[in-house]
Amino acid sequence: MGDLGQLPVGIIGASGYGGVQLIRLLMDHPGVEVVYLGGSSSAGKPFSELYPHLGHCVNLTIEEIDLDKIASRCQVVFLSLPNGLACQMAPPLLAKGCKVIDLSADYRFKNLETYKTWYGGERNDQETVASAVYGLPELYRDRIANAKLVGCPGCYVTTSLLALAPLLKQGLIQPDTAIIDAKSGTSGAGRKAKTNLLLAEADSSVAAYGVARHRHTPEIEQICSDLAGHEVMVQFTPHLMPMVRGLLATVYATLRDPGLVREDLATIYNAFYRASPCVRVLPSGTYPQTKWACGTNLCYISVEVDPRTDRVIVMSVTDNLIKGQAGQAIQCLNLIMGWDEKLGLPLLSFYP
Amino acid sequence: MGDLGQLPVGIIGASGYGGVQLIRLLMDHPGVEVVYLGGSSSAGKPFSELYPHLGHCVNLTIEEIDLDKIASRCQVVFLSLPNGLACQMAPPLLAKGCKVIDLSADYRFKNLETYKTWYGGERNDQETVASAVYGLPELYRDRIANAKLVGCPGCYVTTSLLALAPLLKQGLIQPDTAIIDAKSGTSGAGRKAKTNLLLAEADSSVAAYGVARHRHTPEIEQICSDLAGHEVMVQFTPHLMPMVRGLLATVYATLRDPGLVREDLATIYNAFYRASPCVRVLPSGTYPQTKWACGTNLCYISVEVDPRTDRVIVMSVTDNLIKGQAGQAIQCLNLIMGWDEKLGLPLLSFYP
Amino acid sequence: MGDLGQLPVGIIGASGYGGVQLIRLLMDHPGVEVVYLGGSSSAGKPFSELYPHLGHCVNLTIEEIDLDKIASRCQVVFLSLPNGLACQMAPPLLAKGCKVIDLSADYRFKNLETYKTWYGGERNDQETVASAVYGLPELYRDRIANAKLVGCPGCYVTTSLLALAPLLKQGLIQPDTAIIDAKSGTSGAGRKAKTNLLLAEADSSVAAYGVARHRHTPEIEQICSDLAGHEVMVQFTPHLMPMVRGLLATVYATLRDPGLVREDLATIYNAFYRASPCVRVLPSGTYPQTKWACGTNLCYISVEVDPRTDRVIVMSVTDNLIKGQAGQAIQCLNLIMGWDEKLGLPLLSFYP
Amino acid sequence: MGDLGQLPVGIIGASGYGGVQLIRLLMDHPGVEVVYLGGSSSAGKPFSELYPHLGHCVNLTIEEIDLDKIASRCQVVFLSLPNGLACQMAPPLLAKGCKVIDLSADYRFKNLETYKTWYGGERNDQETVASAVYGLPELYRDRIANAKLVGCPGCYVTTSLLALAPLLKQGLIQPDTAIIDAKSGTSGAGRKAKTNLLLAEADSSVAAYGVARHRHTPEIEQICSDLAGHEVMVQFTPHLMPMVRGLLATVYATLRDPGLVREDLATIYNAFYRASPCVRVLPSGTYPQTKWACGTNLCYISVEVDPRTDRVIVMSVTDNLIKGQAGQAIQCLNLIMGWDEKLGLPLLSFYP
Repeated sequence: MGDLGQLPVGIIGASGYGGVQLIRLLMDHPGVEVVYLGGSSSAGKPFSELYPHLGHCVNLTIEEIDLDKIASRCQVVFLSLPNGLACQMAPPLLAKGCKVIDLSADYRFKNLETYKTWYGGERNDQETVASAVYGLPELYRDRIANAKLVGCPGCYVTTSLLALAPLLKQGLIQPDTAIIDAKSGTSGAGRKAKTNLLLAEADSSVAAYGVARHRHTPEIEQICSDLAGHEVMVQFTPHLMPMVRGLLATVYATLRDPGLVREDLATIYNAFYRASPCVRVLPSGTYPQTKWACGTNLCYISVEVDPRTDRVIVMSVTDNLIKGQAGQAIQCLNLIMGWDEKLGLPLLSFYP
Repeated sequence: MGDLGQLPVGIIGASGYGGVQLIRLLMDHPGVEVVYLGGSSSAGKPFSELYPHLGHCVNLTIEEIDLDKIASRCQVVFLSLPNGLACQMAPPLLAKGCKVIDLSADYRFKNLETYKTWYGGERNDQETVASAVYGLPELYRDRIANAKLVGCPGCYVTTSLLALAPLLKQGLIQPDTAIIDAKSGTSGAGRKAKTNLLLAEADSSVAAYGVARHRHTPEIEQICSDLAGHEVMVQFTPHLMPMVRGLLATVYATLRDPGLVREDLATIYNAFYRASPCVRVLPSGTYPQTKWACGTNLCYISVEVDPRTDRVIVMSVTDNLIKGQAGQAIQCLNLIMGWDEKLGLPLLSFYP
Repeated sequence: MGDLGQLPVGIIGASGYGGVQLIRLLMDHPGVEVVYLGGSSSAGKPFSELYPHLGHCVNLTIEEIDLDKIASRCQVVFLSLPNGLACQMAPPLLAKGCKVIDLSADYRFKNLETYKTWYGGERNDQETVASAVYGLPELYRDRIANAKLVGCPGCYVTTSLLALAPLLKQGLIQPDTAIIDAKSGTSGAGRKAKTNLLLAEADSSVAAYGVARHRHTPEIEQICSDLAGHEVMVQFTPHLMPMVRGLLATVYATLRDPGLVREDLATIYNAFYRASPCVRVLPSGTYPQTKWACGTNLCYISVEVDPRTDRVIVMSVTDNLIKGQAGQAIQCLNLIMGWDEKLGLPLLSFYP
Repeated sequence: MGDLGQLPVGIIGASGYGGVQLIRLLMDHPGVEVVYLGGSSSAGKPFSELYPHLGHCVNLTIEEIDLDKIASRCQVVFLSLPNGLACQMAPPLLAKGCKVIDLSADYRFKNLETYKTWYGGERNDQETVASAVYGLPELYRDRIANAKLVGCPGCYVTTSLLALAPLLKQGLIQPDTAIIDAKSGTSGAGRKAKTNLLLAEADSSVAAYGVARHRHTPEIEQICSDLAGHEVMVQFTPHLMPMVRGLLATVYATLRDPGLVREDLATIYNAFYRASPCVRVLPSGTYPQTKWACGTNLCYISVEVDPRTDRVIVMSVTDNLIKGQAGQAIQCLNLIMGWDEKLGLPLLSFYP
């Protein structure tokens, strides 16, 4: 691709799983130099103290969050923070000329009231919200390429939307029949110590949570409605799996046209994702394991039809921390920079 | 309960997971003495060679399968064999006066044609099939009590039916809207060495299988139709979880009456299972973990309603090898013998 | 055993893993009634709120810790608290006539200075310490039977000592050659939320900790020295395994007499543990899996000899929360009460 | 590095874990083109049928093993086969001008009698054996660079030797005191279906195997003796961990000079591995987790000293399928080709 130069980027929130994935991936990215890591509780610590196994490659110290300093050094800033913090930092960073890629929920909603209903907090940055682009490259590639502020969806929503998008865009399913039964590894819940995420609690067990009222529901519905051109309602149920990484969304919906067979749908999905190097539609009858996606920025999708029930069943898998988080943010960066969308992103999973 | 005497029982198929669970549970059962263990490939071996950790309590040798000898020694025989073998052994055992409790699929279907369609094989024992009782105590308690031949359902079907039964019996859901998204530990697939069940393959990964065409579908539909009083169609999708034991069925269905709230349904479920000591309906808002059921013969159920979508979401969990297999068979034995239904069955899970 | 009556017992520290195991096991114990559960942070909560899956059997509320009230209700009190708390409660409880079984480190050391060196804190209860009996029934059965205060060893030490005891008692190994490489499930670290115990961190990984300086070292040495009749030094290295329960100690030591073969040692071990129903010495060449002990109060031991190196290698496994914690405490209770040592304790593990 | 050209290589035994790792790593290697995949049972199948998740990048079909054809196409051939097969293929391939990198045990032993004692089989290729170089780059870098035939050590031996080498080379430990307690994920046992490797059997459990008589013992001793300049005897105990990947060797040995502290040893280890980019010596007091190495060709080492016992305790971790298998083979290729030793090899693990 010729010499890419070295784009100076910063990461605020470097110590969590999102941060460490970003750092690890950007270290191998041919067009980027990470010049700043910021954090609050970990400020002053060498990054290698937090993650000793990366010490031989990451020779940076976590710094205080000083937006002037960051803006003077970085052209692009990744925000990997708990919900409610990015909306305080993005406006000044944008004003100082940085582009901002946010991994939290702060810029995922077009409607600020919806955000407040589900996430709480006082915010009044409707103008900034309006300028933000939803960071799912497969659906909003062009807008992302021109964005100054990107709000990336997380793992559950990314995996669910990639499964549903072709159906909704082509109007193939009956309204409001979509049910998303999602299964995630526990790393999706972050690195904060909580009792229910202890190995002793979460291993060898499976459970649902947030049933009928998870806050990813309105986010999924917002994008589904945008794709379908009318209001769409979905049922979303997340489950915690006894594993570190990986996410499977099993999606059920009733077909409008009962005559469709799975090969038809595979054709439609392949066409829909033809220009999307990070989505792989599997041959009919091959169902994905989450492990296939682990360590990569890929989403594997398989489509099945039950002719008895006229339902389509879509299975999609991702690595929740890569395509579902840090890798997707870098995919957005690549689009913003006019680079190959998959530049620097791993596409071959280690197996087993 | 006074002196129960010691009922002499035998187990054919003692080396698999079903067999070893039966043995382990029956050793602690106050009314039973295991006097015969039978197997083909393992015949002649002391049981303690197969399972050294049980050697201190199980002083039996696996014997050849000689039906005359078995019938002369045992009043009740458990069959824990691959599908297609029980139907060869049950008729002669019944003829010799034994009662038979079968853990395979051979006597689960009323309609022999349905069995053959999904399981293959040549069979002509329609009369025996007609006399068999479906071994799910919570639904067919009285019939089991009077049965000579019981065909016990397996883990997926048991857990799914216990979740659905009150809804169908009370006519609470719209026809054919039920979707069962089931998640099972890998022990449910048995002890036969298969590549996809290796730890190296199945750990840290989740996947669906048998989508839209799993042979448990017609079995679930048979019982659902019986409960509802009309033909019922369901969508059933099994998933393999990275864990040894435990099964969660997440069941979705659309309510007929959108006014029902979850507390209403909890009341209905509690009433339905009032006389069922092995089913525990959880307080509204408490969702079960599979781990809570592990090591016990219990099924924990939680019912949720989504007022936005008018759907009921039922979560039910079991230990796939106990309530989903060996424990249920013993529960049936207890009914046959007129004992307390839960006699000798563990009801308190080790935690964590 | 005739009518045992119902001994009223209490548990202080009911919400942790030790507490919940005690409750679960005591619920099934034929001679005991749990009449009091005490805690500080959880006081006032129904126990079923902490552990919903036990709600159907445990109808108790966690109460404030009021020693007068406890003593008026309980004849025996189990203390399952962080180190440093039992030594404040045991003396008054003893003074009020209770017997006390402590699961913490507070009464494991004969020498209070050693305790303070490794555990810190100000204590001056040397007299009480002197009266405490070390709660490892296989080694101190008679003393426990007559004790008013028992300090039970934890999982690592129990499993290590049961592996080493016959060697030391018989003087079979060269001084100071014993190396204990121990592997434990993460539940041994308790239920407090810590980052390194998160599933996302601890799953799919193995690591040593506390190398060369773990505080179980002096405790192991204290008992080894008592058994050997001279000062013994050991090397102890704990490792965290990616699993919930189970502990394996692999013990290496150099034989004094190189002529011994593994069958000789199996004979010696069998003799040593003849009267110990909770220790099972495996046939030569059969090595234990931790899973064999899980859910039981058993310790499985296998002894191997390497004639090339003149080393004995002993493998011993336990369930860290039963024989390594709550089960052992109940075993001590049984001795104190003059009951069968294994009364109410599970001896058959579920498998797999 | 300038244009490397594209070295045509082949892999015989492409369907196992070694094979799939080789393929995956070589696909990302800038100097290599994989032009041939060979297998027997899988011949004729597209590689993507065996591993659907690699289908989008690996467009090759497994071919019959035809040595003439292979030699005409490939300059270097990797053999990833069960023990006893490479020794039949390597001589003809060498004769036809190929260089051969073998991942089996066939060319690891200098002494053919030792091989036969532990691995059985009839072989008479002593001359070829004599020409083979032991493929552990950190110890035999120069010889590998000039080799035509390399016999790579596996995961246990690699991880053990990297832990022991500096001690032996510098004469720091007392003879025959080394004990290697090794813990491995189950993928090290390969992809063949065996009951004891099923998830249902191996998950949530830990056990030793091959105690006192594992065939890696003579291989470790052969290299240790070579390093020390005299015969060395070690104690080696492998353990199976409930996880897919990763290997930890905890090594114990008695120091000759009790005055050494851990910082001294860290200095010695750092010096020993200064020119070895795939070995990282950790700061004193930081102990490695296997997870840190997973997905990389690195070995992390930490050295601890117990001044009470005069023992050194070394912990070393690797990914058993990369540095312990396929990655090491590629490291050897890089040396043979005069490339940077770590070319194309991953050095940054995903975390968590």
